[in-house]
Amino acid sequence: MPAPALIAIDWGTTRLRAWLMAGDGSVLAEHRSDDGLIEAQKKRFSTVYATTLEKLQAPAGLPAIICGMAGSRRGWIEAPYVPVPAPLSAVLKEAARVPQPGADIRIVPGLAQTTPDAPDVMRGEETQLAGAGLPVEGTHLVCMPGTHCKWVTVENGRVKTFGTWPTGELYALIAGQSILRHSLGEPPAAVAASSPAFAEACRTALAEGGDFSARLFSIRAGTLLNGLSPADAAARLSGLLIGAEIASALLHLPPLPARRVVLIASGPLAGLYAAAFTLAGFEVRSVDAEAAVRSGLYEAARQNGMVA
Amino acid sequence: MPAPALIAIDWGTTRLRAWLMAGDGSVLAEHRSDDGLIEAQKKRFSTVYATTLEKLQAPAGLPAIICGMAGSRRGWIEAPYVPVPAPLSAVLKEAARVPQPGADIRIVPGLAQTTPDAPDVMRGEETQLAGAGLPVEGTHLVCMPGTHCKWVTVENGRVKTFGTWPTGELYALIAGQSILRHSLGEPPAAVAASSPAFAEACRTALAEGGDFSARLFSIRAGTLLNGLSPADAAARLSGLLIGAEIASALLHLPPLPARRVVLIASGPLAGLYAAAFTLAGFEVRSVDAEAAVRSGLYEAARQNGMVA
Repeated sequence: MPAPALIAIDWGTTRLRAWLMAGDGSVLAEHRSDDGLIEAQKKRFSTVYATTLEKLQAPAGLPAIICGMAGSRRGWIEAPYVPVPAPLSAVLKEAARVPQPGADIRIVPGLAQTTPDAPDVMRGEETQLAGAGLPVEGTHLVCMPGTHCKWVTVENGRVKTFGTWPTGELYALIAGQSILRHSLGEPPAAVAASSPAFAEACRTALAEGGDFSARLFSIRAGTLLNGLSPADAAARLSGLLIGAEIASALLHLPPLPARRVVLIASGPLAGLYAAAFTLAGFEVRSVDAEAAVRSGLYEAARQNGMVA
Repeated sequence: MPAPALIAIDWGTTRLRAWLMAGDGSVLAEHRSDDGLIEAQKKRFSTVYATTLEKLQAPAGLPAIICGMAGSRRGWIEAPYVPVPAPLSAVLKEAARVPQPGADIRIVPGLAQTTPDAPDVMRGEETQLAGAGLPVEGTHLVCMPGTHCKWVTVENGRVKTFGTWPTGELYALIAGQSILRHSLGEPPAAVAASSPAFAEACRTALAEGGDFSARLFSIRAGTLLNGLSPADAAARLSGLLIGAEIASALLHLPPLPARRVVLIASGPLAGLYAAAFTLAGFEVRSVDAEAAVRSGLYEAARQNGMVA
């Protein structure tokens, strides 16, 4: 087995994923926990970090590279945002050092867009982007679904512009807490990417320029008047929100040279977004989000001279 | 003092408002409580009704007219939906009798729209409509803001078509429970109809065809990057959602002969929607929602021969 050389941590708001890596980036051990920002604020970041090393059975003194909310104002230390446009490699190099005696721990900064009409921020997704294997040349549209879905335009290795659509959060709130919860079931029924109800709602929303509010209540009325099933109700809500997001993003982002997207996702969202993009006439290249963040963390360590 | 002749109750999901009326519709006593549908399901509807009569000090044996969720499937009795298009006067006449020995209690039915691409329902707003004093002739666009805002086209006294925009519910969920709660303050800051931040966000949304999802996260980013105040953050969210609702409704409802709207509202929403409609170039006729529902209930009692 190759020697351990690096700790890599994706430290988000609610979750933490950590890997012990060899010098070539291969994974030797993995640890996942719910000690994200929120828990770490209670337990202290250095305590959660020590537990993580223990769980990984990491030898003492290894350098560590971190991305995500641990670098926010409410995090371990603040790794100040890098303003876009910015080359991804330069972003990684700005990793901020955690003042921990005897340890080389650095946190990758997030990105900020300071244009007055579309201010935006991201933390963690810049590392996924850096690890997604985008060709250095050309213009690429990247979509990263999640609680706050990020859309990014990358031009010749530089992040040009980006936007956030909080579709995951809207879905959770509407499905779990609005009047529609009576239609979707409690907990909400799961949605299959192959569902005809998903496709139909998605097509409708793709044609309506990002507006979904007009169609929400028809899901409730569908239950009351037509016996719409919980599975179909959930599929319609999901199709509506994802279709509207794609339509909205295409209106707000710079015009594209081609209908081609890099989709960085994992779990059920990967299938739902791939299906929605296909309905929108897009050619989709899918990248696993977890593999991307791991590669991005390794690349950040390399750029900062933490591994050879 | 004129003699009491009628009990009128607006019985919604969370609230109940009741009036003791004279034969000419004038109000002799009023009672408000939180014994809406949800509480009444626990306490029994007949118990809440008896308490209401007591609070109003109503003489025994008066007829009672009710509108709202008390007539839903989960209500006291179900007053089946009347399908649109339908003349408002005919809707009122369909009031369903509650089988309560020795008492004449009737519940006004809701409206259902069964068109396959826009199924919709309302309960309570049909009574507001009937009491809004719309001219019998002509085509009228009516907007009734609230948790589930209703938009209705009335043509020569007939409800032609309607739609629901759950803007109030979306605002409560996003302001209170999404990432934006950190920007708006807890509880969310109040919004003034005269706020420049409200007007600016509303204008932006009015021009974007019902899409608001692209602009939500910029409120959070505005706090992080530009120190946006809680009051301005709340005003922006409100302006965005109301502006988007108006833009969306205008796209989904039948084309209008003129930019003129009857706004049936009360409380802070009345001012916010009036301001938004003015920004959209509309001439607004404002009707107080509570006065409208009272008039509508009296009219329903009259149509059913319960008062002379």
